[in-house]
Amino acid sequence: MRTSIATVCLSGTLAEKLRAAADAGFDGVEIFEQDLVVSPHSPEQIRDRAAELGLTLDLYQPFRDLLSVEEDVFQDNLRRLESKFQLMQRLGMDQILVCSNVATATVDDDEVRVDQLRRAGELAERYGCYISYEALAWGKYVNTYQHAYDIVAKVDHPHVGTCLDSFHILSRGDDPSGIADMDPAKIFFLQLADAPSMEMGILPWSRHHRVFPGEGDFDLKYFMEQVAKSGYDGPVSLEIFNDKFREADVARTAIDGLRSLIWLADKTAGRVPDSQMEFPQLADAQAPRGFDFVELRTGRLGEVTRALHQLGFSLGGYHQSKPEFQAWVQGDVRIIVEDEGPTGGATAVTGLGVIVDDATAAAERAISLKATPVPRVTGEDEEDLHPVYTPSGSELYFCGPGPDGKGRTWVPEFGFDPEDITSGNADKALINSVHHIALAQPRHTAAETRLFYSSVLGLDSAAPEFLSSPAGLVHKQAIEGEKVHFTVSAAPEGSEQGGFFAENYPEHITFQTDDVFAVAQRAVQRGLKMLAIPENYYDDLAARFGLEPAFIARIKEFNICYDRSDNGEYLHFYTAPFGNTFFEVAEQRGDYSGFGWADEPIRLAAQYRALRDDVRGIPR
Amino acid sequence: MRTSIATVCLSGTLAEKLRAAADAGFDGVEIFEQDLVVSPHSPEQIRDRAAELGLTLDLYQPFRDLLSVEEDVFQDNLRRLESKFQLMQRLGMDQILVCSNVATATVDDDEVRVDQLRRAGELAERYGCYISYEALAWGKYVNTYQHAYDIVAKVDHPHVGTCLDSFHILSRGDDPSGIADMDPAKIFFLQLADAPSMEMGILPWSRHHRVFPGEGDFDLKYFMEQVAKSGYDGPVSLEIFNDKFREADVARTAIDGLRSLIWLADKTAGRVPDSQMEFPQLADAQAPRGFDFVELRTGRLGEVTRALHQLGFSLGGYHQSKPEFQAWVQGDVRIIVEDEGPTGGATAVTGLGVIVDDATAAAERAISLKATPVPRVTGEDEEDLHPVYTPSGSELYFCGPGPDGKGRTWVPEFGFDPEDITSGNADKALINSVHHIALAQPRHTAAETRLFYSSVLGLDSAAPEFLSSPAGLVHKQAIEGEKVHFTVSAAPEGSEQGGFFAENYPEHITFQTDDVFAVAQRAVQRGLKMLAIPENYYDDLAARFGLEPAFIARIKEFNICYDRSDNGEYLHFYTAPFGNTFFEVAEQRGDYSGFGWADEPIRLAAQYRALRDDVRGIPR
Repeated sequence: MRTSIATVCLSGTLAEKLRAAADAGFDGVEIFEQDLVVSPHSPEQIRDRAAELGLTLDLYQPFRDLLSVEEDVFQDNLRRLESKFQLMQRLGMDQILVCSNVATATVDDDEVRVDQLRRAGELAERYGCYISYEALAWGKYVNTYQHAYDIVAKVDHPHVGTCLDSFHILSRGDDPSGIADMDPAKIFFLQLADAPSMEMGILPWSRHHRVFPGEGDFDLKYFMEQVAKSGYDGPVSLEIFNDKFREADVARTAIDGLRSLIWLADKTAGRVPDSQMEFPQLADAQAPRGFDFVELRTGRLGEVTRALHQLGFSLGGYHQSKPEFQAWVQGDVRIIVEDEGPTGGATAVTGLGVIVDDATAAAERAISLKATPVPRVTGEDEEDLHPVYTPSGSELYFCGPGPDGKGRTWVPEFGFDPEDITSGNADKALINSVHHIALAQPRHTAAETRLFYSSVLGLDSAAPEFLSSPAGLVHKQAIEGEKVHFTVSAAPEGSEQGGFFAENYPEHITFQTDDVFAVAQRAVQRGLKMLAIPENYYDDLAARFGLEPAFIARIKEFNICYDRSDNGEYLHFYTAPFGNTFFEVAEQRGDYSGFGWADEPIRLAAQYRALRDDVRGIPR
Repeated sequence: MRTSIATVCLSGTLAEKLRAAADAGFDGVEIFEQDLVVSPHSPEQIRDRAAELGLTLDLYQPFRDLLSVEEDVFQDNLRRLESKFQLMQRLGMDQILVCSNVATATVDDDEVRVDQLRRAGELAERYGCYISYEALAWGKYVNTYQHAYDIVAKVDHPHVGTCLDSFHILSRGDDPSGIADMDPAKIFFLQLADAPSMEMGILPWSRHHRVFPGEGDFDLKYFMEQVAKSGYDGPVSLEIFNDKFREADVARTAIDGLRSLIWLADKTAGRVPDSQMEFPQLADAQAPRGFDFVELRTGRLGEVTRALHQLGFSLGGYHQSKPEFQAWVQGDVRIIVEDEGPTGGATAVTGLGVIVDDATAAAERAISLKATPVPRVTGEDEEDLHPVYTPSGSELYFCGPGPDGKGRTWVPEFGFDPEDITSGNADKALINSVHHIALAQPRHTAAETRLFYSSVLGLDSAAPEFLSSPAGLVHKQAIEGEKVHFTVSAAPEGSEQGGFFAENYPEHITFQTDDVFAVAQRAVQRGLKMLAIPENYYDDLAARFGLEPAFIARIKEFNICYDRSDNGEYLHFYTAPFGNTFFEVAEQRGDYSGFGWADEPIRLAAQYRALRDDVRGIPR
């Protein structure tokens, strides 16, 4: 399968885009006209640079409003088209994208379109060029892929084919199954884009909100299956207009894009085993059995370890060769704390270990999906946990199941036997597992994060929700498997009020317990400072759910928050943050399946107040 | 007219919101429930704080899903409602907003709704409270203001009225003229919101994109006229859900909001002279006759004055009492340059003088519209140009027309006679006027900027357009009168690629000439460094417009860009930036009415490359 990406997907100059596409591993690019027009480099320099980078120049785009016009307008259009063929010769490329007419169409007659497109094809042939004709979803007369294909079929010229674009087809709700029956010789090009479901007109949706395959809500697996069934074996290219991608790091976006194509190819390979496209073969996604450990790096060792102790964790030991790492254990939860010295700096989630059946294969899959391996620093006699970098720079470890399926194969390196701790010579284990890990990311990486975890770990993700904070709306997303769950928060942006969270939005780890009151009581006895929940919250809670005063009094005592869904309840408390990280302890009752997001505004307001003293001006 | 604002319009904590509303000058606030719930202050503290700030608490909101339900659900709803009445008593407030049912409605029967709302009204009466019933545009059964009013009329209870919300009425395209005939005693509350036209579902449009009156595309003048005609004399309140406002500075947003109500009241006062609402009386907006001067502050004096000289400006003189200010003159263009010393720092547009017939009245109008006067620093014998601060902190001066209508009354303070310069003892004046001033602002102040200039100076504004740059999309907006024109650019955001422009997006002044070639030739002879325009641009231009090679060669020689509309042409060049400011010189031919935005991506890419060397990696 040959991969390609339109330069419009990427930020930066054309030179930066080419290099990022090559570095990521794409085979070619589409040249978006404006990227060339604003470039100080000549077409010949661009041609040579692409060759040097090993990139083919697959498609020049877009050429607008060619067909469905009166003859005098068409003559001028042919003049424009010819100048583009001349330019393409200088670029050393031969295929141009022609879109269905939006702005100047006045003649709604397929015979006219067929005639005009054939004459354009004859002109293309004289320059050794090829025309790829595409129906825009908002084309004035031609707006379905089937209509564009019919015109191309009637033109029946070897230099005229059609370009299929998943956005223009799926955004209209059109059924792509007709693609499977197309003549593959008439499909000249394939552009792929995904998009989140939005209540929005197709044009602004297309121009601002496309995302890479797997990052939105379109059924691209089915779409790609139809394309593969047709026998198409040309480039598989990305054409994404996305406001956030245009502002994001170009190298990272390019990698994200290639990951999306590999993910989609992997999905399609299974559905169309005899495809012409030679899909890459990946190791299967393995559903994690659970978190083996979570790693925190902190410049506030005292605060972090005190909180762990207060929550009932026991110190397991120090790593034999890297003494700055210490392991804290409770039940099946293991927290590795890395002491970065008394910097007073932030605390961050720097690593995650997931338990999988075949760690080597799981790491291979991640690397196939463009995750970068972390250079090995483990000693010869130490476990290789196959770490790779996540897009945000944290480390993801793949841990084998060990003899009892619970991972922990690396524990001897910390000089302790986990059974000593879990079987009761330390604190009673009231915490059973990591319920979820709440990551924070900038808004423009939400789509990338969703694709990374879902493709590498085989997790599912849901549409984002919005939660209010005093500094603006937080966009939240859940990424979940059967045994491991993540939430990803994108903090408010902007330089004013939003700035309070933009840099330091806190991440947290939520521990699962069967008795939140017991955990809270022990923690408070040990001096834990919980995040203070306002009285008004409890008054509102009583009104909302009709809860008994005694129950309200009991949860209020421990600053416990309460949420209820149709089938269950969620009782949870937050520790005060140490830097920009904190812990949450949660007890789920019944079949509650959420993350207590109804209570997040309370937490966010309290953390905001800690940053910005709002009591000024209020007489107390 | 009593003004109010819903706390949900503003960022920050409830305490911060109350103070900002009071500081701006609002009479009261609506308490948005979640703001109270997350607050650490008790209802009694909030009550006392509002009283101390001189704010009335006008509306508690929202109460959801009360009506159109089965009796058992309604009983539970009454329980919820009663607890809110108890809470409102603690807050010392008496009116609650009840929205039409969205989520739990199962009974579509007006008789049931009338019965339930009457019983709710009886409960309200027992607590001395009032229910204001509002139709949400997406209410399941009740979604028009007329339907909600009919129900209220049938309930006919003194503690039950209706709340009118302009968004819920105008977003549906409903005709608000029926409001004029309503019984004002049944209209308990008025919420105002504007919104830009968007191709979007009503719910996300409402939740994320509302703006203050005058900042969007709704006809709120007509809406308000209907309300005033009804005889309503209660609070006029703002209820705006806007993602950007939630991230913006709370004090500034509050002022922006009050400005919008004063602007709207001013517009309505003329239409409904006998209104019950006692609208504020403002001085009339005066159409500026032109720019009197533009003031630049620079830490790069040498570069700025050299560019002015190269463009044909002559030094007029230095200010008599403030020698750091110097005046540069050409034709009717006057540029004041403030030397902030050799800091090497940025150059910024710090002040604008507009010529109006009555400067005192114009300044009074600005101050009525919440512009802050700049403390007077002029000497007794110097012209008072009535400066006020714009929202971004620059200074806006109002200049009397002077004897010949051209302003310049302050010129003697610089010790020169403008006629000496304009009549020819200096350079030939090839530049005639300031064509427009291109301001840059963060994205979240676009709406505020639009309202400020349009209300204070009586200008019109158009919907924003998007232009691409290597760092992301730039949002551009034109604000125009007959004689003065502004454009406002909102640069890309984000911490990565977008960050290149976020802090330092350049502003510029565009000079109008009748002969761009003459200006360019003189400037080049004097060594002006123009922004270099790529060859590719000229190749594309020739293809697009079919221009003659000789013409292309001529504009290319001077790095002149070219745009064409149906009725005219625009020839223009840019100077290289000095810091984050530059000059543009433009010749309009025919009836070209734009700003050359088609060429902005070229400029932005060139300026981006100056920040980030993209030639690396390209062999030359």
